[in-house]
Amino acid sequence: MIAKTPAPPYFAVIFSSIKSDNLHNYSVVAKQMLELASQQEGFLGVESASTNNFGITVSFWRDIDSIKKWKENSEHKIAQEQGKTQWYKNYKIRICKVERDYEL
Amino acid sequence: MIAKTPAPPYFAVIFSSIKSDNLHNYSVVAKQMLELASQQEGFLGVESASTNNFGITVSFWRDIDSIKKWKENSEHKIAQEQGKTQWYKNYKIRICKVERDYEL
Repeated sequence: MIAKTPAPPYFAVIFSSIKSDNLHNYSVVAKQMLELASQQEGFLGVESASTNNFGITVSFWRDIDSIKKWKENSEHKIAQEQGKTQWYKNYKIRICKVERDYEL
Repeated sequence: MIAKTPAPPYFAVIFSSIKSDNLHNYSVVAKQMLELASQQEGFLGVESASTNNFGITVSFWRDIDSIKKWKENSEHKIAQEQGKTQWYKNYKIRICKVERDYEL
Protein backbone atom coordinates (compact mmCIF):
# COMPACT_ATOMS: atom_id res chain seq x y z
CA MET A 1 0.00 0.00 0.00
CA ILE A 2 3.09 2.21 0.28
CA ALA A 3 3.80 3.39 -3.27
CA LYS A 4 7.11 2.19 -4.72
CA THR A 5 8.32 5.54 -5.96
CA PRO A 6 11.73 6.13 -7.60
CA ALA A 7 14.55 8.12 -6.01
CA PRO A 8 13.69 11.83 -5.57
CA PRO A 9 13.13 14.33 -6.97
CA TYR A 10 9.59 13.58 -8.10
CA PHE A 11 6.24 15.24 -7.41
CA ALA A 12 3.30 14.58 -5.11
CA VAL A 13 -0.29 15.81 -5.21
CA ILE A 14 -1.78 15.75 -1.70
CA PHE A 15 -5.56 15.71 -1.99
CA SER A 16 -7.26 16.22 1.41
CA SER A 17 -11.04 16.07 1.40
CA ILE A 18 -14.12 16.11 3.57
CA LYS A 19 -16.89 14.11 1.97
CA SER A 20 -20.52 15.18 1.92
CA ASP A 21 -23.43 12.85 2.68
CA ASN A 22 -24.27 12.60 -1.03
CA LEU A 23 -21.88 9.90 -2.23
CA HIS A 24 -24.02 8.63 -5.08
CA ASN A 25 -21.69 7.19 -7.76
CA TYR A 26 -18.62 8.16 -5.74
CA SER A 27 -17.03 4.74 -5.33
CA VAL A 28 -17.58 3.76 -8.98
CA VAL A 29 -16.06 6.98 -10.32
CA ALA A 30 -13.22 6.96 -7.75
CA LYS A 31 -12.24 3.49 -8.95
CA GLN A 32 -12.41 4.59 -12.60
CA MET A 33 -10.28 7.65 -11.89
CA LEU A 34 -7.67 5.57 -10.06
CA GLU A 35 -7.42 3.26 -13.06
CA LEU A 36 -7.32 6.16 -15.53
CA ALA A 37 -4.68 8.04 -13.49
CA SER A 38 -2.48 4.97 -13.37
CA GLN A 39 -2.46 4.86 -17.18
CA GLN A 40 -1.22 8.44 -17.52
CA GLU A 41 2.27 9.26 -18.69
CA GLY A 42 4.41 10.13 -15.66
CA PHE A 43 2.20 8.46 -13.03
CA LEU A 44 4.36 6.87 -10.31
CA GLY A 45 1.86 5.58 -7.75
CA VAL A 46 -0.86 6.50 -5.30
CA GLU A 47 -1.66 6.08 -1.60
CA SER A 48 -5.00 6.64 0.06
CA ALA A 49 -6.52 6.48 3.54
CA SER A 50 -9.68 7.80 5.12
CA THR A 51 -11.09 8.20 8.60
CA ASN A 52 -14.84 8.76 8.69
CA ASN A 53 -15.54 11.47 6.11
CA PHE A 54 -11.97 12.78 5.98
CA GLY A 55 -9.67 11.38 3.31
CA ILE A 56 -6.09 11.86 2.19
CA THR A 57 -5.02 10.66 -1.26
CA VAL A 58 -1.45 11.26 -2.36
CA SER A 59 -0.57 10.63 -5.99
CA PHE A 60 3.01 10.66 -7.22
CA TRP A 61 4.20 11.97 -10.57
CA ARG A 62 7.42 12.27 -12.57
CA ASP A 63 7.03 15.99 -13.24
CA ILE A 64 4.68 18.98 -13.07
CA ASP A 65 3.73 18.57 -16.70
CA SER A 66 2.26 15.10 -16.03
CA ILE A 67 0.21 16.59 -13.17
CA LYS A 68 -1.11 19.37 -15.43
CA LYS A 69 -2.10 16.90 -18.14
CA TRP A 70 -3.93 14.70 -15.65
CA LYS A 71 -5.75 17.74 -14.27
CA GLU A 72 -6.88 18.60 -17.83
CA ASN A 73 -7.89 15.04 -18.78
CA SER A 74 -11.46 15.28 -20.08
CA GLU A 75 -12.90 12.34 -18.11
CA HIS A 76 -11.11 13.54 -15.01
CA LYS A 77 -12.58 17.03 -15.48
CA ILE A 78 -16.10 15.58 -15.43
CA ALA A 79 -15.29 13.72 -12.20
CA GLN A 80 -13.74 16.88 -10.71
CA GLU A 81 -16.94 18.78 -11.43
CA GLN A 82 -19.05 16.09 -9.75
CA GLY A 83 -16.67 16.20 -6.79
CA LYS A 84 -17.04 19.97 -6.44
CA THR A 85 -20.81 20.03 -6.69
CA GLN A 86 -21.74 16.77 -4.99
CA TRP A 87 -19.25 14.53 -3.20
CA TYR A 88 -17.07 16.97 -1.28
CA LYS A 89 -17.97 19.45 1.42
CA ASN A 90 -14.45 20.78 1.20
CA TYR A 91 -11.06 19.84 -0.20
CA LYS A 92 -7.54 21.14 -0.51
CA ILE A 93 -4.96 20.16 -3.11
CA ARG A 94 -1.26 20.72 -2.54
CA ILE A 95 1.28 20.31 -5.35
CA CYS A 96 4.66 19.34 -3.92
CA LYS A 97 8.17 18.50 -4.99
CA VAL A 98 9.45 15.47 -3.08
CA GLU A 99 13.04 16.35 -2.25
CA ARG A 100 14.04 13.43 -0.02
CA ASP A 101 12.53 10.17 1.16
CA TYR A 102 13.51 7.34 3.47
CA GLU A 103 11.89 4.23 4.83
CA LEU A 104 12.04 1.65 7.58
CA MET B 1 -9.52 18.56 9.72
CA ILE B 2 -7.95 20.20 6.66
CA ALA B 3 -4.93 22.11 7.98
CA LYS B 4 -5.12 25.88 7.56
CA THR B 5 -1.70 26.36 6.04
CA PRO B 6 -0.34 29.71 4.83
CA ALA B 7 0.31 30.58 1.18
CA PRO B 8 3.08 28.43 -0.39
CA PRO B 9 5.93 27.83 -0.35
CA TYR B 10 6.05 25.75 2.81
CA PHE B 11 7.05 22.15 3.52
CA ALA B 12 5.23 18.87 4.06
CA VAL B 13 6.34 15.60 5.63
CA ILE B 14 4.26 12.73 4.26
CA PHE B 15 4.47 9.80 6.67
CA SER B 16 2.91 6.64 5.21
CA SER B 17 2.87 3.62 7.51
CA ILE B 18 1.69 0.06 7.88
CA LYS B 19 1.05 -0.76 11.50
CA SER B 20 2.01 -4.03 13.14
CA ASP B 21 -0.26 -5.97 15.48
CA ASN B 22 1.70 -4.78 18.53
CA LEU B 23 0.18 -1.36 19.19
CA HIS B 24 0.85 -1.31 22.93
CA ASN B 25 1.20 2.35 24.00
CA TYR B 26 0.77 3.55 20.42
CA SER B 27 -2.27 5.77 20.86
CA VAL B 28 -0.94 7.41 24.04
CA VAL B 29 2.44 8.22 22.48
CA ALA B 30 0.86 9.28 19.16
CA LYS B 31 -1.26 11.81 21.03
CA GLN B 32 1.76 13.08 22.98
CA MET B 33 3.81 13.46 19.79
CA LEU B 34 1.01 15.37 18.07
CA GLU B 35 0.87 17.78 20.98
CA LEU B 36 4.66 18.10 21.14
CA ALA B 37 4.95 18.63 17.37
CA SER B 38 2.36 21.38 17.47
CA GLN B 39 4.50 23.27 19.99
CA GLN B 40 7.58 23.25 17.76
CA GLU B 41 8.85 26.38 16.08
CA GLY B 42 7.76 26.35 12.44
CA PHE B 43 4.91 23.85 12.83
CA LEU B 44 1.99 24.81 10.55
CA GLY B 45 -0.50 21.98 10.97
CA VAL B 46 -1.16 18.27 10.53
CA GLU B 47 -3.64 15.97 8.79
CA SER B 48 -4.09 12.28 9.40
CA ALA B 49 -6.23 9.42 8.08
CA SER B 50 -6.04 5.65 8.28
CA THR B 51 -7.72 2.69 6.64
CA ASN B 52 -7.24 -0.57 8.52
CA ASN B 53 -3.53 -0.80 9.30
CA PHE B 54 -2.46 1.73 6.65
CA GLY B 55 -2.08 5.35 7.72
CA ILE B 56 -1.08 8.64 6.12
CA THR B 57 -0.06 11.57 8.32
CA VAL B 58 1.00 14.79 6.65
CA SER B 59 2.60 17.48 8.82
CA PHE B 60 3.29 20.97 7.49
CA TRP B 61 6.29 23.10 8.36
CA ARG B 62 7.62 26.57 7.62
CA ASP B 63 11.05 25.36 6.50
CA ILE B 64 13.42 22.39 6.32
CA ASP B 65 15.22 23.52 9.45
CA SER B 66 12.03 23.13 11.54
CA ILE B 67 11.61 19.60 10.16
CA LYS B 68 15.21 18.72 11.05
CA LYS B 69 14.82 20.04 14.60
CA TRP B 70 11.60 18.07 15.11
CA LYS B 71 13.30 14.93 13.81
CA GLU B 72 16.09 15.44 16.37
CA ASN B 73 13.77 16.26 19.30
CA SER B 74 14.78 13.91 22.13
CA GLU B 75 11.28 12.77 23.11
CA HIS B 76 10.42 12.33 19.46
CA LYS B 77 13.54 10.21 18.95
CA ILE B 78 12.39 7.81 21.68
CA ALA B 79 8.99 7.53 19.99
CA GLN B 80 10.66 7.01 16.58
CA GLU B 81 12.66 4.13 18.02
CA GLN B 82 9.54 2.50 19.45
CA GLY B 83 7.86 2.99 16.07
CA LYS B 84 10.71 1.27 14.24
CA THR B 85 10.98 -1.70 16.59
CA GLN B 86 7.36 -2.20 17.60
CA TRP B 87 4.45 -0.30 16.05
CA TYR B 88 5.27 -0.27 12.34
CA LYS B 89 5.73 -3.13 9.93
CA ASN B 90 6.86 -0.61 7.35
CA TYR B 91 6.85 3.12 6.75
CA LYS B 92 8.02 5.70 4.26
CA ILE B 93 8.72 9.37 4.91
CA ARG B 94 8.77 11.91 2.11
CA ILE B 95 10.04 15.46 2.62
CA CYS B 96 8.37 17.83 0.19
CA LYS B 97 8.25 21.46 -0.76
CA VAL B 98 4.65 22.58 -1.29
CA GLU B 99 4.81 24.78 -4.36
CA ARG B 100 1.12 25.51 -4.97
CA ASP B 101 -2.19 24.79 -3.30
CA TYR B 102 -5.85 25.42 -4.00
CA GLU B 103 -9.13 24.48 -2.44
CA LEU B 104 -12.83 24.10 -3.07
